Amino acid sequence: MTLINENFLKLQAGYLFPEIGRRKKAFQQAHPEAKIISMGIGDVTQPLAPAVIKAMKKAVDEMGRKETFRGYDDGGVGYEFLRKAISENDFKARGADIDIDEIIVSDGAKCDTGNMQEIFGLDNVVAVSDPVYPVYVDTNVMAGRTGKPAGQSRYEGIVYMPCTEDNNFVPEVPKEKVDLIYLCFPNNPTGAVATKQQLVEWVNYARKNKAIILFDAAYEEYISDPDIPHSIYEIEGAKDVAIEFRSFSKTAGFTGVRCAFTVVPRQLVAYTKDGRAVEVNPIWKRRQCTKFNGVSYITQCGAEAVYTEEGKKQIKETIDIYMGNAKLIRETLSKAGYTVYGGVNAPYIWLKTPEGISSWDFFDLLLSKAHVVCTPGAGFGSAGQGYVRLTAFGQPESVKEALERITAIS
Amino acid sequence: MTLINENFLKLQAGYLFPEIGRRKKAFQQAHPEAKIISMGIGDVTQPLAPAVIKAMKKAVDEMGRKETFRGYDDGGVGYEFLRKAISENDFKARGADIDIDEIIVSDGAKCDTGNMQEIFGLDNVVAVSDPVYPVYVDTNVMAGRTGKPAGQSRYEGIVYMPCTEDNNFVPEVPKEKVDLIYLCFPNNPTGAVATKQQLVEWVNYARKNKAIILFDAAYEEYISDPDIPHSIYEIEGAKDVAIEFRSFSKTAGFTGVRCAFTVVPRQLVAYTKDGRAVEVNPIWKRRQCTKFNGVSYITQCGAEAVYTEEGKKQIKETIDIYMGNAKLIRETLSKAGYTVYGGVNAPYIWLKTPEGISSWDFFDLLLSKAHVVCTPGAGFGSAGQGYVRLTAFGQPESVKEALERITAIS
Repeated sequence: MTLINENFLKLQAGYLFPEIGRRKKAFQQAHPEAKIISMGIGDVTQPLAPAVIKAMKKAVDEMGRKETFRGYDDGGVGYEFLRKAISENDFKARGADIDIDEIIVSDGAKCDTGNMQEIFGLDNVVAVSDPVYPVYVDTNVMAGRTGKPAGQSRYEGIVYMPCTEDNNFVPEVPKEKVDLIYLCFPNNPTGAVATKQQLVEWVNYARKNKAIILFDAAYEEYISDPDIPHSIYEIEGAKDVAIEFRSFSKTAGFTGVRCAFTVVPRQLVAYTKDGRAVEVNPIWKRRQCTKFNGVSYITQCGAEAVYTEEGKKQIKETIDIYMGNAKLIRETLSKAGYTVYGGVNAPYIWLKTPEGISSWDFFDLLLSKAHVVCTPGAGFGSAGQGYVRLTAFGQPESVKEALERITAIS
Repeated sequence: MTLINENFLKLQAGYLFPEIGRRKKAFQQAHPEAKIISMGIGDVTQPLAPAVIKAMKKAVDEMGRKETFRGYDDGGVGYEFLRKAISENDFKARGADIDIDEIIVSDGAKCDTGNMQEIFGLDNVVAVSDPVYPVYVDTNVMAGRTGKPAGQSRYEGIVYMPCTEDNNFVPEVPKEKVDLIYLCFPNNPTGAVATKQQLVEWVNYARKNKAIILFDAAYEEYISDPDIPHSIYEIEGAKDVAIEFRSFSKTAGFTGVRCAFTVVPRQLVAYTKDGRAVEVNPIWKRRQCTKFNGVSYITQCGAEAVYTEEGKKQIKETIDIYMGNAKLIRETLSKAGYTVYGGVNAPYIWLKTPEGISSWDFFDLLLSKAHVVCTPGAGFGSAGQGYVRLTAFGQPESVKEALERITAIS
């Protein structure tokens, strides 16, 4: 008799975005005339940069000729040409000494942040922010690293670190000892960023407790403040205790193209139960070369083009469009009397619902009165209750129209 | 203190293909003048079909225009246009009633066959063929579903089903009760196929024992015998007990493009420990939408083109080239006195080493004397000892030269 993994049965409700999709679809079917504008799922809308398109077309042509055809990406960790561009542009240019052997290319940061827990023991204590990107939690539930649901979309056994107005949505280091710490800056969903000093405290905590920080920096390209670190490796000592996740999804509009990478420093270790240090980098590579077979050559050529002079300029123009949206959302909603956070160093605006309305009620209100889809903050955790997330990824004209409709409600 | 998943430390040696790569590289460095021909790793060499190239270039163009740009593949299970083409061509055309909701598109059969075990309990007894594609075993070791290494590249707790000359390399149903059964036909590495009657016995066994068959049909396009089933769903009752894995890698040369799919029938169930039936299809989708974010739109457009009239014709021409190689390998080596299997319904030739030489010794012999890389059968399991696998994926002129060099040794 084949047994199911019963940890999957602990998962509460559907994954957040399918649930939003279902409500949106139901509303659209009941009101076919409504022109719904989505500010919900964090998906980009601007086309790929011309430099990326050019590189991918060249790569497609190469795949059509016997002399230049490419099969498996040997080793499955990414072509050296791409890892070299990443190492130089994303790290060495910012003073972080990350070598190409420490960079492992993949098809998405969701995959990497979801899969990474697999190489660590089940007895580790996991700490996450609240609100939190659901993937961090759900994948630990699936693996059996948590107990049962504990109400308010929480699970027994996980340490939740509330991010509230009081701490500016940046969690304090926990008083208890934890082992695996998920941090995401710029933050999804709150749009908050961590200062250098705040990251120093986290690195010191991890070093002192032999913990590992899983640092999700998928939105670093949206940082506008020159004093905010883009990589955790800008902090001294971080290479001993941190794994960093990056993605081309939001940086270069690759949500439908699929490319990301993870940095696992060579010096990073975890421990056996009897205290022996084990290098994590080869274990992650072993995991990847056994369960993954590399990223499309065409995609990797497109990703490399992001780092050309032409590519960088085009990428910046697109990000400026999104951050223009973010500014408009913040200013318009503030003026209309809403309390809003984020949107300065991140493409997310974290809106406090008026008069303590619940997140899902405000979601339904915006959908029914303004035909605008947002993401209920409660879907990211109990401390997200009373907030919704708005994304700045829309077309500028749609964002403008959505804001007009929202302000017309009040 | 962060604990490592100690199951990873049970894994024996490196993954097979990196080890082959290392030996090849070392030989090449010692003999820079040697022109090594690879008949080792199962990687294709022919360019993508013109129909695929055309579709992918069109898709790249769409991604460069605001009006036609695509972000996330909603739901992450594959675009309906592709799942529809798969359902009609791969299944309904062969009398197997597989619906689009039962097809989940992914970036590789290695990923799918590796990840699938995750949704099942750790207490299931796993059965694999010996020799076996290492991914089936290694991923179960990583998950902790096995005991310690048990010598001869085996692990405690796994049921090994020897595939030998005596059973024509098709395993008999086991006498004991097992829960998760990995079957691969056409087989990698032996090139053997299972008849309809043999598959009926497996389906009956699984139905009787409430077991699940994980059926890897990545090489079905290479079947030339009209009586051999391409899908396990051609067997009555299989939808109750079987999951099937398919790939565009070998069918359409997508090893460097990355597209595959898995069929999980709606009616397939696994059980909780207290005997309650749980539908597997939504659990797999939940796993995928939490840990995976869909396949590149460009890739999916390329995969759809495989099913056009033009695409089918071009794909067949490429497969004819490879199967022409297979025929030449079989005939040449048989004539030279070697005992060979496979190569009729599969792109793999399973060669018995002469005079009982070990697989790795024969590997080193072929490398040093003929400058030809094969895959040692022992790398696939203890019953693979005394065999090597040759692939038919080379350029015809290289295959011819390799055979001349091999026959010159004897």
